[in-house]
Amino acid sequence: MAQEVIPNTGARVRWLARAGELSGPTAGLAMGYVQANLVVVPRDLAFDFLLFCQRNPKPCPLLDVTEAGSPEPRLVAPGADLRTDLPRYRVHRNGEVVDEPTDLGRWWRDDLVGFLLGCSFTFESALLQAGVPVRHLEQGCNVPMYRTSIACRPAGIFHGPMVVSMRPLTPGQAVTATRVCGRFPRAHGVPVHFGDPEAIGIHDIGKPDFGDPVEMRPGEVPVFWACGVTPQAVAMQARPPFLITHKPGHMFVTDLRDTDLEGE
Amino acid sequence: MAQEVIPNTGARVRWLARAGELSGPTAGLAMGYVQANLVVVPRDLAFDFLLFCQRNPKPCPLLDVTEAGSPEPRLVAPGADLRTDLPRYRVHRNGEVVDEPTDLGRWWRDDLVGFLLGCSFTFESALLQAGVPVRHLEQGCNVPMYRTSIACRPAGIFHGPMVVSMRPLTPGQAVTATRVCGRFPRAHGVPVHFGDPEAIGIHDIGKPDFGDPVEMRPGEVPVFWACGVTPQAVAMQARPPFLITHKPGHMFVTDLRDTDLEGE
Repeated sequence: MAQEVIPNTGARVRWLARAGELSGPTAGLAMGYVQANLVVVPRDLAFDFLLFCQRNPKPCPLLDVTEAGSPEPRLVAPGADLRTDLPRYRVHRNGEVVDEPTDLGRWWRDDLVGFLLGCSFTFESALLQAGVPVRHLEQGCNVPMYRTSIACRPAGIFHGPMVVSMRPLTPGQAVTATRVCGRFPRAHGVPVHFGDPEAIGIHDIGKPDFGDPVEMRPGEVPVFWACGVTPQAVAMQARPPFLITHKPGHMFVTDLRDTDLEGE
Repeated sequence: MAQEVIPNTGARVRWLARAGELSGPTAGLAMGYVQANLVVVPRDLAFDFLLFCQRNPKPCPLLDVTEAGSPEPRLVAPGADLRTDLPRYRVHRNGEVVDEPTDLGRWWRDDLVGFLLGCSFTFESALLQAGVPVRHLEQGCNVPMYRTSIACRPAGIFHGPMVVSMRPLTPGQAVTATRVCGRFPRAHGVPVHFGDPEAIGIHDIGKPDFGDPVEMRPGEVPVFWACGVTPQAVAMQARPPFLITHKPGHMFVTDLRDTDLEGE
């Protein structure tokens, strides 16, 4: 990447990943293009996982699902290949990470189904455009994420608590953020909670379960959104014999523009 | 039903159907409660059909999907039973109707998955409240429906053309209708087309493929919505060995209120 200009389209990011020239995080690349979480499960678990996503649309907003054995997400990036076009993957066996490859050449099977799920990058970009500050971006760290006492609706073998991300905002900013995020139901949508962390089972706001803690300033309240880590956490908790995800932060970049996710 | 007051809740309609006291259409019953289309397929087709619905949300807005073998739609009507709580069913074998029972006692199997899909009754009720007339209701007939040249996105064995319903409106009414229906993405949402029927492959507006023709008045244009007959037509076209639907017009009435379908 040293000599490379910042890739400015989803197709360019995917091409660099496929060519082995990009193996790092995708935050800030191809601004305005929708990035997506990846979960890959064998065909015999695909109905249960699809149903889990359909029942829990806030943490698991479905952008695309592939036909069994096909690595091409035809709705969001025709011609792309889920086996090569992400910078880095995680391969899980019985709930344990066994490999972090840059492509799935040796792991792909003909019974695999890929799920692409909306990601908070989409609404964070809309928040910034609306003048709402995003603390972890200001601090240059990862967003703080917490396991909650909010149960997801179970489906087949998949069940577990909702994971949320948190952004500190003033009440006025929180109202604007709610209005803005309401435009993006397929990127986690409106917040699930604000204020008292204990009310959703978070005992220490300073110690996130994933990501980094961020500064809370006087007059700010914590605002919580359903988080795309939920489906990964739930999928791994079910400990299926075989499962693939992206490595956190190393997303699939689609051909969709952020504005394509507005409304229906 | 002769001596019965009109049932005014979803639970009451379902109770009457279960008790064998209601075997007719549900239009006009339990006003304000969301009614739903039913499609039941065996487990081995459930992933393909769920994926078809997820890829075609306008004709196939998913309200609930049951666990394999469970007849209880837990999200939209906890405690209800899909085997008994609709007035009348259709049982299909290899694409042919072989029975129209009032319950599924002799047809239910432990591998069946039930899908409940949003229905136009929800948005027609909102149109009337917004002062937009609905011609087929004025004429006391069924809505006209047409096969179109718009292809649904295929999924596994399921593929076919979108079926649309049509309501004649003035341009001003059409604009209001679009605004109102935009609030109900899970009840077919905004129109898919208005004006020239030929543009979507409809050659004779006076001869609908399903339902009844309605009067077009001077100054009116035909306005077309994705229709809940689509998933049934597609499911039947795939000619699976075994499939169950409701009999058209004889819907499942949920515990949801029309307002519950607004927004996300």
